[in-house]
Amino acid sequence: MSARRSRVALLGFGTVGSAVGRRFAAGIPGLALTHILDRRAALKRARHPELAAAAWTTSVADVLQSDADIVVEAIGGFDPAAGWIDAALAAGKSVVTANKQVIARDGARLLQVAERQGRQLRFEAAVGGAMPIVRALADGLAGDRLTRIVAILNGTTNAVLSQMEASGCALDVALAAARARGLAEADPSADLDGDDARAKLAIVCALAFGIRVDPEGIPMRSCAALEPRDFAAARRNGGTIRQIARAEFDAARAVLAASVGPEIVPRSSIFARTIGPDNAALIVGEHSGETGIFGVGAGGDATAVAIVGDLIAIARDRAAIVPAPHLTSNFSLSTSTFPSEAVC
Amino acid sequence: MSARRSRVALLGFGTVGSAVGRRFAAGIPGLALTHILDRRAALKRARHPELAAAAWTTSVADVLQSDADIVVEAIGGFDPAAGWIDAALAAGKSVVTANKQVIARDGARLLQVAERQGRQLRFEAAVGGAMPIVRALADGLAGDRLTRIVAILNGTTNAVLSQMEASGCALDVALAAARARGLAEADPSADLDGDDARAKLAIVCALAFGIRVDPEGIPMRSCAALEPRDFAAARRNGGTIRQIARAEFDAARAVLAASVGPEIVPRSSIFARTIGPDNAALIVGEHSGETGIFGVGAGGDATAVAIVGDLIAIARDRAAIVPAPHLTSNFSLSTSTFPSEAVC
Repeated sequence: MSARRSRVALLGFGTVGSAVGRRFAAGIPGLALTHILDRRAALKRARHPELAAAAWTTSVADVLQSDADIVVEAIGGFDPAAGWIDAALAAGKSVVTANKQVIARDGARLLQVAERQGRQLRFEAAVGGAMPIVRALADGLAGDRLTRIVAILNGTTNAVLSQMEASGCALDVALAAARARGLAEADPSADLDGDDARAKLAIVCALAFGIRVDPEGIPMRSCAALEPRDFAAARRNGGTIRQIARAEFDAARAVLAASVGPEIVPRSSIFARTIGPDNAALIVGEHSGETGIFGVGAGGDATAVAIVGDLIAIARDRAAIVPAPHLTSNFSLSTSTFPSEAVC
Repeated sequence: MSARRSRVALLGFGTVGSAVGRRFAAGIPGLALTHILDRRAALKRARHPELAAAAWTTSVADVLQSDADIVVEAIGGFDPAAGWIDAALAAGKSVVTANKQVIARDGARLLQVAERQGRQLRFEAAVGGAMPIVRALADGLAGDRLTRIVAILNGTTNAVLSQMEASGCALDVALAAARARGLAEADPSADLDGDDARAKLAIVCALAFGIRVDPEGIPMRSCAALEPRDFAAARRNGGTIRQIARAEFDAARAVLAASVGPEIVPRSSIFARTIGPDNAALIVGEHSGETGIFGVGAGGDATAVAIVGDLIAIARDRAAIVPAPHLTSNFSLSTSTFPSEAVC
C-alpha cells in the first residue's frame, strides 16, 4: 500500500453521498476525502463541520483540475453523471460509481477509457447495494460459464410488495410507508415500473454472459397496478408476488431471454423470504450449479459499504486492471418468454 | 490481457486436480496447462490422452524449474503442500490453492512472500467451494466493519446431517450414502469432528476481522455421535441440526467468540434449507446489516470453478496485488460461549 493516502473527491451529497461522507468523517485508513461537489455546497458545508477539511464546490471543473486521485460519482441519473465520469477518467482519475444508468448504457466503453488511462472504474454499488453481486459475477464465478440469473434487484419495490403481502394493504399505503422509511422517492415509477431493475439486469448480463443488452429492450411489466387481491390469489396458490428480474443466456444458440416484472414466487423460495429493501440473486452456472447471494439492496449506508470497498481496492493497488469486457451484441433477445407465473 | 497465454502447472491430479484438468481440456482463454505433477503420473497420463500436451511428472523440482507462470496446488493436507507453495513463490510463480490447512496456518506469511516476489497467492477455493465467500469478505464487504459470521462450511457433514434429517437414518447409513456420492472420504473424522470447518473458520476470521486465530484453539464439538433421536427432538422444537461454524468479534473489547459443532437451527433458517454438500454463510456488518451467500461447497467441479476464477484473475492482471493482511494476535478467544442451542 502506498504511504500517501489516496485523495477522494465526492460528486453529490445526497442520500448516498452523505453516507459516504459519514464513513470518511469516522476515518478510512489510506483514504482522505479532499473535495465535495454539491449543488448546494455552501448550505451542506455549513451543516457538516465534521467535513470542513474538504474543499466544497459547485463546480465540477474544480474537481477535474484538483489533485484528487479518485472521484466518487454519487449523483445518479444519466446526465450530467455520464459526462462527468468520462471527464474524470480523461483527467487521469479513477472513478467509483453507484450509477446503474451510466454503467448499463456506457460501462464497457468507460472501462476501456479507464484501461487506456491506466486508471480504474469500479461500480459494485450500482447493483444490489451492499450485496456484493458485481464481484461475485466478475471475479468469484468468473471460472464458470453462467447460464441463468433470477433476482430481486429493486429494494424500493421489494419493500412495497413485501409490505402488501404482510399487511394486505393497498399499494399506495405500502408506498407511503416506504417513503416514510426513506426507501422510496417522490416519484417511484422507475422502481415500480421496472426501469431501475432493467438497468441493473443489463449490467448483470454484461458481467455474467459478456453480452451488451439495451435495458430498454428488456420486456417489462409494471408492479404499479398490483392490488391486495393479487396477493390473496397468489397466497391461495402457496406463493406471493415479487418484482423479479431474470435473464437466461443460451450461448450455443446466442439467445437471451430476459424480463422484469411481477411474478408469483413460491413461499418457500429465497425470493418470498426477501423482505423490505433487501435484494437477492440466484446464479446458475454449468459447473458451479446454483449460487445465491442476498443482502440490503437500498439505502445510503448499504450503498456506501460498496463504494468504500471499491475505494479501498483502488487505494491498495492503484495499478490494478479492472478488465474492460469485450461485449458481444451478436445475439437475439427473445421477447416472447415472459414466465407463465407472471402476474398483471 | 497479455498476448502470451499464462502457463499453468497443476500439483495433484485427484478429485480437484482432475476437475481442473477437465476445464483445461475444454479450453480456458488465456491459459494453458503445461505441467501436471502426480504421484502416479505415468498411470494418469495414460488415462488422460486429452492432457497429453502437458508435461507429466512426479518431481516437484521439474515444476519449480519450469517456465510455468502459475502453480495450482491441489494436493491437500499440510505436508508437503505448504513447502511446495513456499518454494513455488520463491521460484517466482504465482500460486492458486484450495488448501484450507495451509492458508489457515500460514496464509498471512505466504501472502507476504507473494507480495515481496511481485506475485499472487489466491485461495477462493479454500473456503466454500464455488460459493465466492473469500471475495465477498476480502473485497465485496471490505468497506464495512464486519462483526459476525455464522456458516455451514463443511459440505460432507452437511450432506450427512441433511440426509439424517430427511430419512431418519443413522449416521453411518447417511455416511455410506455420502461416500457413494463421492462426498465423503474413507476417514470422515476431520469433517464430522469439525477440524475442516475450524480451518476454514480461521481463514474467515483473518479475512473478516483481521485477526490470527489458531484453528486448534477454536472450541469444537463433534457431529459423529448424533443419532436419529437428536433430530427427532430438534424437529419437535421446530428445528433441525447442522454443523455450524460461528465467529463473533467484538473489536472494542478485542474478544473473539468462535465455535464449530452441531447446533439446532430453526427450520425456516437458511441453514436448515442448506442440504446436501451445499455451504452457506450469514455475514453481519456494522453498516451493511446482514449479507448472505450460499452455494455448492464440495466436489471437484465446484472447487475447480473457484480455482479457474483465480487463474483468470491472475492471467488478466499479472501485476495485481493481493494484499497481505496485517493480522493481529492481540485479542482473547472466549472459550465459554458455545451457543446454548448446541446439541451433543
